[in-house]
Amino acid sequence: MDVMGFKVRTDADLDQFAERLLDIGVHVEVVPEGEDPGVGRKIRFKTPTQHVFELYADMELSENGPATRNPDVWLAEPRGMRATRFDHCALSGVDIAASARIFVEALDFSVTEELVDEGSGTRLGIFLSCSNKAHDVAFLGYPEDGRIHHASFYLESWHDVGHAADIISRYDISLDIGPTRHGITRGQTIYFFDPSGNRNETFSGGYFYYPDHPQRMWQAESAGKAIFYYEKVLNDRFMTVTT
Amino acid sequence: MDVMGFKVRTDADLDQFAERLLDIGVHVEVVPEGEDPGVGRKIRFKTPTQHVFELYADMELSENGPATRNPDVWLAEPRGMRATRFDHCALSGVDIAASARIFVEALDFSVTEELVDEGSGTRLGIFLSCSNKAHDVAFLGYPEDGRIHHASFYLESWHDVGHAADIISRYDISLDIGPTRHGITRGQTIYFFDPSGNRNETFSGGYFYYPDHPQRMWQAESAGKAIFYYEKVLNDRFMTVTT
Amino acid sequence: MDVMGFKVRTDADLDQFAERLLDIGVHVEVVPEGEDPGVGRKIRFKTPTQHVFELYADMELSENGPATRNPDVWLAEPRGMRATRFDHCALSGVDIAASARIFVEALDFSVTEELVDEGSGTRLGIFLSCSNKAHDVAFLGYPEDGRIHHASFYLESWHDVGHAADIISRYDISLDIGPTRHGITRGQTIYFFDPSGNRNETFSGGYFYYPDHPQRMWQAESAGKAIFYYEKVLNDRFMTVTT
Amino acid sequence: MDVMGFKVRTDADLDQFAERLLDIGVHVEVVPEGEDPGVGRKIRFKTPTQHVFELYADMELSENGPATRNPDVWLAEPRGMRATRFDHCALSGVDIAASARIFVEALDFSVTEELVDEGSGTRLGIFLSCSNKAHDVAFLGYPEDGRIHHASFYLESWHDVGHAADIISRYDISLDIGPTRHGITRGQTIYFFDPSGNRNETFSGGYFYYPDHPQRMWQAESAGKAIFYYEKVLNDRFMTVTT
Repeated sequence: MDVMGFKVRTDADLDQFAERLLDIGVHVEVVPEGEDPGVGRKIRFKTPTQHVFELYADMELSENGPATRNPDVWLAEPRGMRATRFDHCALSGVDIAASARIFVEALDFSVTEELVDEGSGTRLGIFLSCSNKAHDVAFLGYPEDGRIHHASFYLESWHDVGHAADIISRYDISLDIGPTRHGITRGQTIYFFDPSGNRNETFSGGYFYYPDHPQRMWQAESAGKAIFYYEKVLNDRFMTVTT
Repeated sequence: MDVMGFKVRTDADLDQFAERLLDIGVHVEVVPEGEDPGVGRKIRFKTPTQHVFELYADMELSENGPATRNPDVWLAEPRGMRATRFDHCALSGVDIAASARIFVEALDFSVTEELVDEGSGTRLGIFLSCSNKAHDVAFLGYPEDGRIHHASFYLESWHDVGHAADIISRYDISLDIGPTRHGITRGQTIYFFDPSGNRNETFSGGYFYYPDHPQRMWQAESAGKAIFYYEKVLNDRFMTVTT
Repeated sequence: MDVMGFKVRTDADLDQFAERLLDIGVHVEVVPEGEDPGVGRKIRFKTPTQHVFELYADMELSENGPATRNPDVWLAEPRGMRATRFDHCALSGVDIAASARIFVEALDFSVTEELVDEGSGTRLGIFLSCSNKAHDVAFLGYPEDGRIHHASFYLESWHDVGHAADIISRYDISLDIGPTRHGITRGQTIYFFDPSGNRNETFSGGYFYYPDHPQRMWQAESAGKAIFYYEKVLNDRFMTVTT
Repeated sequence: MDVMGFKVRTDADLDQFAERLLDIGVHVEVVPEGEDPGVGRKIRFKTPTQHVFELYADMELSENGPATRNPDVWLAEPRGMRATRFDHCALSGVDIAASARIFVEALDFSVTEELVDEGSGTRLGIFLSCSNKAHDVAFLGYPEDGRIHHASFYLESWHDVGHAADIISRYDISLDIGPTRHGITRGQTIYFFDPSGNRNETFSGGYFYYPDHPQRMWQAESAGKAIFYYEKVLNDRFMTVTT
């Protein structure tokens, strides 16, 4: 993975988050405006799992940005898989607890769910939210750092998950698994590989998260059901990662 | 399997079908009214694959039968998997071409789709319709006669297939495969085993068949896609049958 | 309306239906092959409500007709309202009982549902099926003969009915009514007018009809619920017809 | 309306919000723990439109609260309209701009959409979010203060909106309007009256709101489309309020 970015509310928030990151010992790099076209000043840091994140407060809207005056439900009829937004990434590495701690302690994320080996106390998966989504980023235990498990895009409905499945099969796109549901987050989902070998997810549903939700916990023994609620078993292919 | 029954339009049709069965050398047994409560005279025959079928023209309606006067969309809110009707059976045996021939030649069924080993010309699956459904009965090649692969029940939508999947997982019902789609018939489907070990299907969709549709043919090499349009591979469990 | 056509199974059926029409006093015109490109010999008749129907047994398939060899769920991704077939017409005129009788007595249709003024015994709507559909043609009482109420196209799901509604609103297509459900047939539906002023319906669902279903009957007092199951009242606009 | 409550993150937030309310001249009442069973200390204030709001930080979970250990998608199969949560209220009164200002200036809400009479600059509707929802509360212009337009409950899908419509019709619940879609928020919706005459909404969908979204604006001339995206006209019944 090159980088994953989060937009913060104000430029002042950038300074505040930078300070909080430094306070817990995370090295912070300040990238001046203009490195990416249309993007303002950025704060960059790397997690113990070797994933690079950037925070920024300003990004220009595209010329055909959101309609705001008597806006229609859409301007152009949705096509293809009908993804409505990028949703989250799942990132793989060794010390995921340390990476997750940064998001909780310095960046106001909440842990919504964890997959835990109760015997050793090891976290196998940690799901983090800074919104009403079940996850904005997730970390998955893996023997190698800096890897990406999947990038995920949001669909409006289970109907659209089925339509995505039709598209995947019709055009001989490489299916990973689905349509199925996750136990964790409850999302209804399908995974496929793009021509570069990256795993992508399109999904719908999932619960609406509030910060006062009690944290959910899945035992390692229930990992199958946690990940694939219907199949209740993991498959080897899903255990792989990409760069 | 004990028996699968089809209701014909009139009592006279029973005689006509009996005659046509005899004409092509199928032994016919006439069962007088009353063997089954509420069911009239029956015509019984056995296929070369050792499956017993019965035709009948009369069956009493239950006391809480269909509402006919300003009928509501339903009387009691649908519960559980929300199956709206029994739909079809898939039956397993050796000489499925011979069994299918009876339905075509004596009973006015059409073959909607076939799965064919083009090298040998062997039929591995034959799907037959006497309605606008993609299949009312199907025969699947299997080394042993008289077996049942599954009984199938109709759901209104892909949404209900997903709901069936939730029920199967929530109540630890034994999942076979799904939610997925069939290439053959295009049905959106999920399979599970009941406590007796019988495979059941709940499905929705599928095309609307007319007798002038050109017959669809799937090559044995595409059996995976024919059966599981998304996964494109068969699994061993799905190859099993029950009694 | 110019003409509504039904395809029959065989050329011999054309002769049989012609004879049966003549037997009940319906004038029949035989139109030789070639009047319509790709269409074989036709049998033409006019109902007492002055609607012209044609029966034919042969029609050429288009070059990009149905795929039959390992066929995909679709060749090109569905677009627009995603209609999968023409479904039925509703035709308006005075003596609809007489028109319906022709379809029942000479053409083997069944009356699935009727809207009846029980006081006078007058039929206000008669719905007829020659398939497993809730209606293949419907006649609606109207003071003038030879009019068309709507042509209807089939969608796969309630989800697609909602999508049709989005399209209608986004492109300022003239909405008649919907999304709603019919009491009669239980179809989930939306009506709109094309630029020529013709009313079109796109709908999904509806029950699966079998000829042994008891006929459903709606009282004129329940006409609102019969037509618009949710609103339970008719609107004036829906009472209009087109040519 | 008696009162509408919002839960805040921490007890300290209560003090901070109380201070900010006082700073902009809003009278604040502190209600000690225990007035409502299981609810902690509350901050109460009244808007210029005479609606009473309470903020609280602590509320006990019910004994059968959310499952947190290997949690299933649901414990008991969803029934009835399958509402998954209370979502928002729409409240009616005269000076809605003044009421909305309190939520923006003292409570960190954002205005997501407005319905505006551009000639006079008068706000006819103001929609406010403190989450990723398109609205958590809305104010609608009305000649009388302190009234409630509707309370709204969230459904998972358009499929469930259709199911809610079936329930409303089947059990002769008083329908207001729907199934339809809102232009504002894009929610897919149906409104009905409970036996006390209160308007309730069940809806699904709607966009996912982020605070950096440009504010959407609807002209009074497009009020029909803003409220009922399909019908594009308001009806008199929807203009009524309840106590």
